[in-house]
Amino acid sequence: MQAAFFSGNQKFETGPCVPVAPVEGQVQIRVAFCGICGTDLHLFHGAMANRLTLPHVMGHEMSGVIESVGAAVQGWKPGDRVTVRPLDPCGQCPACLAGHSHICHNLKFIGIDRPGALQGLWTVPAHTLHRLPESLGLREAAMVEPIAVACHDVRMGEVAAGEFAAVIGGGPIGILIALVAQARGARVLLAEVNEFRVKLARDLGIDAVNPREVDVPVLVAERTAGAGADVVFEVSGSSAAAAIMTSLPRTRGRIVVVAIYGEPPKIDLFRFFWRELKLAGARVYEPVDFEHAIELAAAGRLPIDRLITGVLPLGRLEEAMRQMERGGDCMKILVDVQA
Amino acid sequence: MQAAFFSGNQKFETGPCVPVAPVEGQVQIRVAFCGICGTDLHLFHGAMANRLTLPHVMGHEMSGVIESVGAAVQGWKPGDRVTVRPLDPCGQCPACLAGHSHICHNLKFIGIDRPGALQGLWTVPAHTLHRLPESLGLREAAMVEPIAVACHDVRMGEVAAGEFAAVIGGGPIGILIALVAQARGARVLLAEVNEFRVKLARDLGIDAVNPREVDVPVLVAERTAGAGADVVFEVSGSSAAAAIMTSLPRTRGRIVVVAIYGEPPKIDLFRFFWRELKLAGARVYEPVDFEHAIELAAAGRLPIDRLITGVLPLGRLEEAMRQMERGGDCMKILVDVQA
Repeated sequence: MQAAFFSGNQKFETGPCVPVAPVEGQVQIRVAFCGICGTDLHLFHGAMANRLTLPHVMGHEMSGVIESVGAAVQGWKPGDRVTVRPLDPCGQCPACLAGHSHICHNLKFIGIDRPGALQGLWTVPAHTLHRLPESLGLREAAMVEPIAVACHDVRMGEVAAGEFAAVIGGGPIGILIALVAQARGARVLLAEVNEFRVKLARDLGIDAVNPREVDVPVLVAERTAGAGADVVFEVSGSSAAAAIMTSLPRTRGRIVVVAIYGEPPKIDLFRFFWRELKLAGARVYEPVDFEHAIELAAAGRLPIDRLITGVLPLGRLEEAMRQMERGGDCMKILVDVQA
Repeated sequence: MQAAFFSGNQKFETGPCVPVAPVEGQVQIRVAFCGICGTDLHLFHGAMANRLTLPHVMGHEMSGVIESVGAAVQGWKPGDRVTVRPLDPCGQCPACLAGHSHICHNLKFIGIDRPGALQGLWTVPAHTLHRLPESLGLREAAMVEPIAVACHDVRMGEVAAGEFAAVIGGGPIGILIALVAQARGARVLLAEVNEFRVKLARDLGIDAVNPREVDVPVLVAERTAGAGADVVFEVSGSSAAAAIMTSLPRTRGRIVVVAIYGEPPKIDLFRFFWRELKLAGARVYEPVDFEHAIELAAAGRLPIDRLITGVLPLGRLEEAMRQMERGGDCMKILVDVQA
C-alpha cells in the first residue's frame, strides 16, 4: 500500500504507506477514494505551510472501509464502510463549550494539521466517523464531504422551499450548494465566469449565467418581480463578487459567505442598513450536515457522477494538482488510493 | 404659532406656521417638543438636498396633542397626547408586500420627504400615531422616537438576558442601545471617543471606555473569558469601527450595523467565515418598537432627562445646530416648539 507524501515546493513523493496502529478511541481505515479540494491545491502552492509537518499527507474528502479498531471503540467494526468528518476539536475552548466545536478555537483539521487520507491505511479518531449505506458506492461516497459543506451552507442560509437563491461561484462547492438548495425546493441562479463550469451546471439542470455576459443584479430583479433574492451564497472569494453580493438580496434577505477572503474587501454596509440585510459566515460542517449529505447522496438525488471529472491513481497526484491549477475543464478529481 | 423654515445654505427662518387642515385619514397635532437628530444636522449641512422641497420644515422626534382630526379617523380625538412614527410607506412594493413596510422601497420619511414637526401645528396620517400614557411627560416623550430606534436595534440583535453586548459609538442612539440592552438584562461595554459622552454614559451606569485609551478587543476578550461578545452594535460609522467590529464577537456572535456609511469600508470577511459571525443591518423601527419605547419611557426605566442636554425655543434652532456641530458637551437638544 502506498501514500503520497508532500515534501513542499509543489512536489509529491509516492512511497510505502506507514500504517499507524489505532490506539484507544481510534480506528484504522483502508482508504478507497479521496477527492482533491481547493484547500489541497492551496497547500500544494505553499499556503498554510506553518501548519504542516513535512513530509505531509493531504486528503480529507474520502471513503473507505474500517481495517481495525483500537480499544474502547464502540459501534464500529472491521468491514464497516465509512467516511470521515475531518475535524478534531479541543473540547475545552469557549466555542466548544458553546456547542460550536466544528469551529473550535483550537480546531485541528485532519488532512492539514494532522495526516490526511491520501494513504492506503489511515488512522483517525472514531468520533469522526459516519456510516455509509450499502446503496452508496465508495466512489460517490468520496463526495460526501463537499456535499456536507453545501448542506451546512444551505442550512446556515435557512433556505426554504419556493425561495429564490443566487449562488456566486460555480466550482464544486457552488454547484453543490445550487443542487442542495434545489433539492430543498428553492429556485436557483448560479453565476460563474468559467464557461466549462457554466455548461456543466446547465447540464445538471441549474440555471447558470456568466456574469461577464449578463448583468446579474438586473436578472435577479427580473426573476423576483423587483423584490430581490431571498438568499445569496458568495462562493467565489472575488472582490467583484463582494461588491455585487449586497445588491442582490430582497429586504431582510440573507447573504452567506462561504468563500475565503485573503484580504478584507470593500463592502457596501449602507445597503445592509437600507434593506436590513443579513450576512452569515459558514465554515465546514456539523454532524447533521454529514448525515444530510449521506442521505441525499444515497437517495440518488444529486448527480454526483457528473461532478467527478477524473479519477487518477495515487502516483498521479501531482498531475491532478496541475490539472486543477489550470482550471478549464475540470470539476472534481478523485484519487483511487488503492490503485 | 411659529414654524422653522429651512431655506438651504445652513439657514433657518422662523415665521408664522401655516396650518394644513387634516383631510380624510389625517390628524393635526399641536406639537409640544421636537428633538434634533443627527439626520437633521446632515440636512442642515446640505445632505439629501434632492429629497427636500424648500423652504423645508424638519423634525421627526416629537410629542404633542391632537388639535383636530380629519374624516374617517377612528380611535383618535382632539386632546389625545401622541407621538408620531414618521414613516409613510407605499403599501405596494415588494418590501411592503413582504411585511417590511418600515423599509418600503418607496418610503416617504416624514420630516425629510414631507414637512416635519418643527412647526406649531403639524398634519400627519393617523396611521403614524402612538398614544402617550399620562405618566409620560411631553418633554420626555419627544425622546420616544430615538428610543424606538434603539429598541429596534436591540430587537434585531436578539439580545438576551445575561449576554455581553459591545456598543461602538456613544451618541444618543449608542447610549440608548446600551440602556435598552441593559434593561433586557445584558452586560454592556460602550466604546466612545468623545470624553464628555464617555463621562455621561458612566454617570448613567454604563461601562464606557475610550478606544483611544483602551484596546477594546482585548478588554472584550477579558470580560468574556476569551469567548468574545454575544452581540456588537456598530453605531459610529467610522472605518476604524468597521475594522474592529469583526474582532469582537464570539463564534456565531452577531453584529448589528446601525450606522450609515457614506463609503463602503473594508470588512474582514475571513473573520465572518472563521467564526461563523452574523451581521444584520437595522433601519428605523416598526410599530412594536414604538410601543416598547413608550413602555420603557413611561415606566421610568431609562434616565431620559439626563440625555436631554438642552431645550431651546424654535427661534434658536440654528444655534442648536451649531452646538451639535461642535460636538463636545452636548447629547440631545430639544426644541420647545410652542415657546
